Amino acid sequence: MKNFYELIDQHFDEMVEIRRYLHQYPELSFEEVQTAAYIAEYYEKLGIPYRANVGGNGIVATIKGSKPGKTVALRADFDALPIHEQSEVPFRSKNDGVMHACGHDGHTATLLVLAKVLNQLKDELEGNIVLIHQHAEELVPGGAISMIEDGCLEGVDYIYGVHLWATDNVGEVYYKEGPFMAAADQFEIKIIGRGGHGAQPHLTKDSIMTASQLVVSLQQIVSRNVDPLESAVLSVGSFVANNAFNVIADTTQLKGTVRTFKESVRSKMQSRMEEVIKGVCDACGTDYEFNYTRGYPPLVNHKEETEHIKQVASRIPGVLSVSEKAAQMGGEDFGYYLQHVPGSFAFVGAKDPNASEVAPHHHPKFMIDERSLPIAAKLLGEATLSHLKYSTENKVESK
Amino acid sequence: MKNFYELIDQHFDEMVEIRRYLHQYPELSFEEVQTAAYIAEYYEKLGIPYRANVGGNGIVATIKGSKPGKTVALRADFDALPIHEQSEVPFRSKNDGVMHACGHDGHTATLLVLAKVLNQLKDELEGNIVLIHQHAEELVPGGAISMIEDGCLEGVDYIYGVHLWATDNVGEVYYKEGPFMAAADQFEIKIIGRGGHGAQPHLTKDSIMTASQLVVSLQQIVSRNVDPLESAVLSVGSFVANNAFNVIADTTQLKGTVRTFKESVRSKMQSRMEEVIKGVCDACGTDYEFNYTRGYPPLVNHKEETEHIKQVASRIPGVLSVSEKAAQMGGEDFGYYLQHVPGSFAFVGAKDPNASEVAPHHHPKFMIDERSLPIAAKLLGEATLSHLKYSTENKVESK
Amino acid sequence: MKNFYELIDQHFDEMVEIRRYLHQYPELSFEEVQTAAYIAEYYEKLGIPYRANVGGNGIVATIKGSKPGKTVALRADFDALPIHEQSEVPFRSKNDGVMHACGHDGHTATLLVLAKVLNQLKDELEGNIVLIHQHAEELVPGGAISMIEDGCLEGVDYIYGVHLWATDNVGEVYYKEGPFMAAADQFEIKIIGRGGHGAQPHLTKDSIMTASQLVVSLQQIVSRNVDPLESAVLSVGSFVANNAFNVIADTTQLKGTVRTFKESVRSKMQSRMEEVIKGVCDACGTDYEFNYTRGYPPLVNHKEETEHIKQVASRIPGVLSVSEKAAQMGGEDFGYYLQHVPGSFAFVGAKDPNASEVAPHHHPKFMIDERSLPIAAKLLGEATLSHLKYSTENKVESK
Amino acid sequence: MKNFYELIDQHFDEMVEIRRYLHQYPELSFEEVQTAAYIAEYYEKLGIPYRANVGGNGIVATIKGSKPGKTVALRADFDALPIHEQSEVPFRSKNDGVMHACGHDGHTATLLVLAKVLNQLKDELEGNIVLIHQHAEELVPGGAISMIEDGCLEGVDYIYGVHLWATDNVGEVYYKEGPFMAAADQFEIKIIGRGGHGAQPHLTKDSIMTASQLVVSLQQIVSRNVDPLESAVLSVGSFVANNAFNVIADTTQLKGTVRTFKESVRSKMQSRMEEVIKGVCDACGTDYEFNYTRGYPPLVNHKEETEHIKQVASRIPGVLSVSEKAAQMGGEDFGYYLQHVPGSFAFVGAKDPNASEVAPHHHPKFMIDERSLPIAAKLLGEATLSHLKYSTENKVESK
Repeated sequence: MKNFYELIDQHFDEMVEIRRYLHQYPELSFEEVQTAAYIAEYYEKLGIPYRANVGGNGIVATIKGSKPGKTVALRADFDALPIHEQSEVPFRSKNDGVMHACGHDGHTATLLVLAKVLNQLKDELEGNIVLIHQHAEELVPGGAISMIEDGCLEGVDYIYGVHLWATDNVGEVYYKEGPFMAAADQFEIKIIGRGGHGAQPHLTKDSIMTASQLVVSLQQIVSRNVDPLESAVLSVGSFVANNAFNVIADTTQLKGTVRTFKESVRSKMQSRMEEVIKGVCDACGTDYEFNYTRGYPPLVNHKEETEHIKQVASRIPGVLSVSEKAAQMGGEDFGYYLQHVPGSFAFVGAKDPNASEVAPHHHPKFMIDERSLPIAAKLLGEATLSHLKYSTENKVESK
Repeated sequence: MKNFYELIDQHFDEMVEIRRYLHQYPELSFEEVQTAAYIAEYYEKLGIPYRANVGGNGIVATIKGSKPGKTVALRADFDALPIHEQSEVPFRSKNDGVMHACGHDGHTATLLVLAKVLNQLKDELEGNIVLIHQHAEELVPGGAISMIEDGCLEGVDYIYGVHLWATDNVGEVYYKEGPFMAAADQFEIKIIGRGGHGAQPHLTKDSIMTASQLVVSLQQIVSRNVDPLESAVLSVGSFVANNAFNVIADTTQLKGTVRTFKESVRSKMQSRMEEVIKGVCDACGTDYEFNYTRGYPPLVNHKEETEHIKQVASRIPGVLSVSEKAAQMGGEDFGYYLQHVPGSFAFVGAKDPNASEVAPHHHPKFMIDERSLPIAAKLLGEATLSHLKYSTENKVESK
Repeated sequence: MKNFYELIDQHFDEMVEIRRYLHQYPELSFEEVQTAAYIAEYYEKLGIPYRANVGGNGIVATIKGSKPGKTVALRADFDALPIHEQSEVPFRSKNDGVMHACGHDGHTATLLVLAKVLNQLKDELEGNIVLIHQHAEELVPGGAISMIEDGCLEGVDYIYGVHLWATDNVGEVYYKEGPFMAAADQFEIKIIGRGGHGAQPHLTKDSIMTASQLVVSLQQIVSRNVDPLESAVLSVGSFVANNAFNVIADTTQLKGTVRTFKESVRSKMQSRMEEVIKGVCDACGTDYEFNYTRGYPPLVNHKEETEHIKQVASRIPGVLSVSEKAAQMGGEDFGYYLQHVPGSFAFVGAKDPNASEVAPHHHPKFMIDERSLPIAAKLLGEATLSHLKYSTENKVESK
Repeated sequence: MKNFYELIDQHFDEMVEIRRYLHQYPELSFEEVQTAAYIAEYYEKLGIPYRANVGGNGIVATIKGSKPGKTVALRADFDALPIHEQSEVPFRSKNDGVMHACGHDGHTATLLVLAKVLNQLKDELEGNIVLIHQHAEELVPGGAISMIEDGCLEGVDYIYGVHLWATDNVGEVYYKEGPFMAAADQFEIKIIGRGGHGAQPHLTKDSIMTASQLVVSLQQIVSRNVDPLESAVLSVGSFVANNAFNVIADTTQLKGTVRTFKESVRSKMQSRMEEVIKGVCDACGTDYEFNYTRGYPPLVNHKEETEHIKQVASRIPGVLSVSEKAAQMGGEDFGYYLQHVPGSFAFVGAKDPNASEVAPHHHPKFMIDERSLPIAAKLLGEATLSHLKYSTENKVESK
């Protein structure tokens, strides 16, 4: 007879096994056919009903409690990255050039085993659990948006998700109410002048001159046009006009990124950029092309559900600290779910506390400490079960 | 029996006397009523026909030769400046705050005495001489333009003028073919933003920010849009947004000057300014008012007549050197005459060669060496007489 | 027999009377001699011991409870502003050009009457109350710093203060944990070039050109050098080089403000400014003088005490809402107290809810709704009494 | 019996033949071994003494007159360009990728045949003629400097040279006193920042930001620091920081050119560039590398010798016009010779007056009208002979 936490711990080896298997067979975003099949087969064996090909390669399984109640969705992503793994673990990637360098293998292992355990408790539950296995988190437009369109949130009252975080210690849980992860947009600007000889600027329209003024003028958007109490970044990362020394550049190409936490700020950034580009080009007599591609929206955690995660986390065995995290300028398409239903996204520390050096996410030597998996499972499980009026102290017969 | 040069020298004292008288009674541009009356009276006494109130306070006298021939105009200006004289000469200004600080008193004395001498020779002349005493050279729009409209150049074949130049030695004559003195234009720009509290830039349109970007962006006109073989200057001399430290400036006022030597460059400067101002304001979301006031046109000396001055100057007794002068960024409304008839404008050195310190033109201690007056008279006289087929070596009975 | 709240309400008329009296006799910062005397006399009459001339014109009174316990300080400021009052109330300022345009008259009236009421309860209190009447809040360096140096916080365990806020409705209370009001610093920059004629830029060092580049370059500090998750403002509010159109400006004067919420960000702003100014001047060949004057530090509310205010506020009769306030870019020298003892500073709505137009603080038509005074008194009183183990429900005999 | 002009005309076919031969076998700068051998052989056959390998591949031949007198040097360059010829003439380049696209084949043919003719006249000459066949005009540092070091100007009193000019009509000759062709310098600037993630600018030193400010700030050198009466160009032709959109650029590479006509302006450009680069980098916290490579000096024609060319040109049969040419922003290493001895460099029109379209110099379809060759020969010959007191009207027996 074990309680929920003990049931999770009992399945620790299985979690590790699944995670290591997935780690060896990573698949790129929108190409995760084998991974999706693996997940589907897992539910198939457990007899948990699921729907495949949701909005692409997504899988949605459902555990129905015996009594009516709330429906809680849990989400784990399962795509990998175009990175050549450099770690020396025995379970290193067998798909050369593709790597689980962001911990999605761990997310999936966590959710699958958690589903298995929760399924054992279903007769005691008032409400339902929806297990969202999302493809394509790493690549815009992401899998969330199509899975939502394909109905994965139907009837869902709350949604939770976690990210295993390789730079926080195992045992640490982080929450953040409100804006947590930034909208990460991309832009390209082409300045179209008229080339000529470097000795005759008056016969040309100098695109480097225009583009330089533009980079300088764009600074005013963050420094003057955005409320100083809001966060916004505009970085030009690429500036290319590759010519001989004695010419005047016909065209110049700029590329960059905009990061924001609020839709209003995001829209202002884009509209002000267009105004600044147009104004500077008019002042220089040059033309332009401006492409602004929206990435994921800002991830904005809901207040009540974040408080819920915070409360839940503090009573989980093995959680050493529960702290507020600063907002992150990186993006996450979990933000789409939060536009539809209340919920919260949390970080679960996955760094070996004794590790000397730690590779960050998306690094060829990225690694997570697997002891973080049961913590993630307990956090998501506890958060769910308390909504379904099930006490995690209840003892059940373990299977 | 004296030749022309000797006749001039004979009248040196009169020149000095006239010049010193005028120096004591300077009058501001467009207000030179007494000075005009003085000039008119001089011609009246000589019996030389003249026309008063030409285009304002201008006086035009005419000496007709006994035979037909060319008509040569000579011009001297006679207005003074709003400067409080600081020199200690006995003939210092008696009109407090007004001063002949540019040598126009000398120009007038020169031309009056020259007219007197030329009038003695009129029976020998093939052609006519027009003596243009111009008011208001110092103040835009100047007197030249209205005197021309009032007919002062009718029938004129050539025109000459000189400027006594206080920083060149007595005995030096300077010519310059082509563009000699710049078009001197003036502009005012008002940037209209929206003020507010310095802590809330996002609620404002920062006019100082816009104006600063504008000053920086205007540099590109000279550096990129003007042919490097041409000359152009754009200077912002005044930038005023005078507020408390913790506000954002509603409006900012700029004033400045543009100097050019060619109409095409001048027009480009003005049109590019408008484009740059509009573009920068659009980029910043601000509005503007732009006033561009054209000053005098560039003074462009004609080739043949400049060569004539150069040749003539080299044979005048007392002229020590005849050199080409670099173009000057200052303005002169003699340029208007040269738009209508061929001619040339020259500099006649008026600095005491032994002077230790020299005040520049428009300085409260400005002073000319009066020995320059007969040189100027001989130069203009010789330039005129040779057109009228009169040899300055001819002896006449002196009066 | 009345409880604390009823006692406060019973003194409403006195509060209004005091506030209106003070409103008629405003005194400028550091010159508040009569106001200080008025306050001292009030305590004198009540027999509450006080110390005058604390750190200048400050007054500190103390109410000692009958039993040992915590010591709670309450602070009210009493200086006025150099503004000519434009409102038409019968109690308008009689000191022409000086005005209580920020509500400090109300703060003082509130604290005096609150002291009177609390003094009635002193036999029931476990602990002490320190009443800090601070002079000179409006003018850097402010009165707080010298009052602290003069011992006003000795033995104090907690400190609270409120600001009556004319743009929030009566009945609203606002708290904010952590950074609440910004550090408000001031700077002056003098760019020292070399003047000259507008037509000869090459002989000058153009201070307007330098200063314009500087304003543009300073934008990069906020846009590039400050963590986008932090808040910072740098505004140049004054830019003066007031010359004739045809000169090049010898010197240019800039003035502006920097606002931050963290000491690390503040220090970075200042040090980066110096680097940018020096670099731009070096690039332009000009010199500079740079004065950076630190204003008040950021006001950072303590967590526990802010939670205390929030809890207390929610149980006060007449409080309609208790909400979190966004951080404010304005400054307050209450921040100094919070550097020494735990505490919190709150806003108490003082706008007539039916008012159509509302003048903001520091406006010649600024006005507060006096119904806010008893709410402020109850909030500060309740926050104090609960620390001193006194229930505001207790009934006492009213005097 | 023919005079000098007739002798030249008599050798027209030989000129054409030589020019076409050279056109077929072009050699790159500093690699002109066969061309040098061809020239040497020509002198060898004529029995004119010469020195080979002068300062590299240069050839210097000398014709001594029978009596003492002045020594006049004539210079022709003979290197070709790395251009793939696209014209269809039967004598097109047989060295694929190398082309006489600047007319140096014509210069050499002209000088060789002129030498042959002058050699016939040597018994009548008072003085000597030095024939300088210069290698490597197209590539910095050029051949002139090493030939001068190797003594090619020893004993020389005057030097003349011409350029056949494909965009001016045959029959036109152009002179220009003073600065004629620009100093053409090259620079490279590397901005060294610190890279990072585009979302975290505060942890980086943004090299694109620095470089953009630099391009903008460099404009002030031409617009503010150079005398507006002088010519100067500074163009940044290449700006490369080629990265992903979401990074901040570690380094940025700039390349460009500076053109000037006076050494003082040139030096100021270079020193101001260093100041501006250093200042902007200091303001941004970045480092830099700055390489400034001087190209040829400005070509400054001497006054007397230019007047000589002008006078001489006007009496040559076949010359239709003799005009002043505007200064050219392109470079020529003939300028080095003029730093040592008086002389002048002129343009000789080489465009077929009936041609519809004309390819400019350095174009794959560049072509000269060979009728320009005898005009060039006559101009250089006449300019030389008049110094040696030989009348080109003298009749000699033709060979």
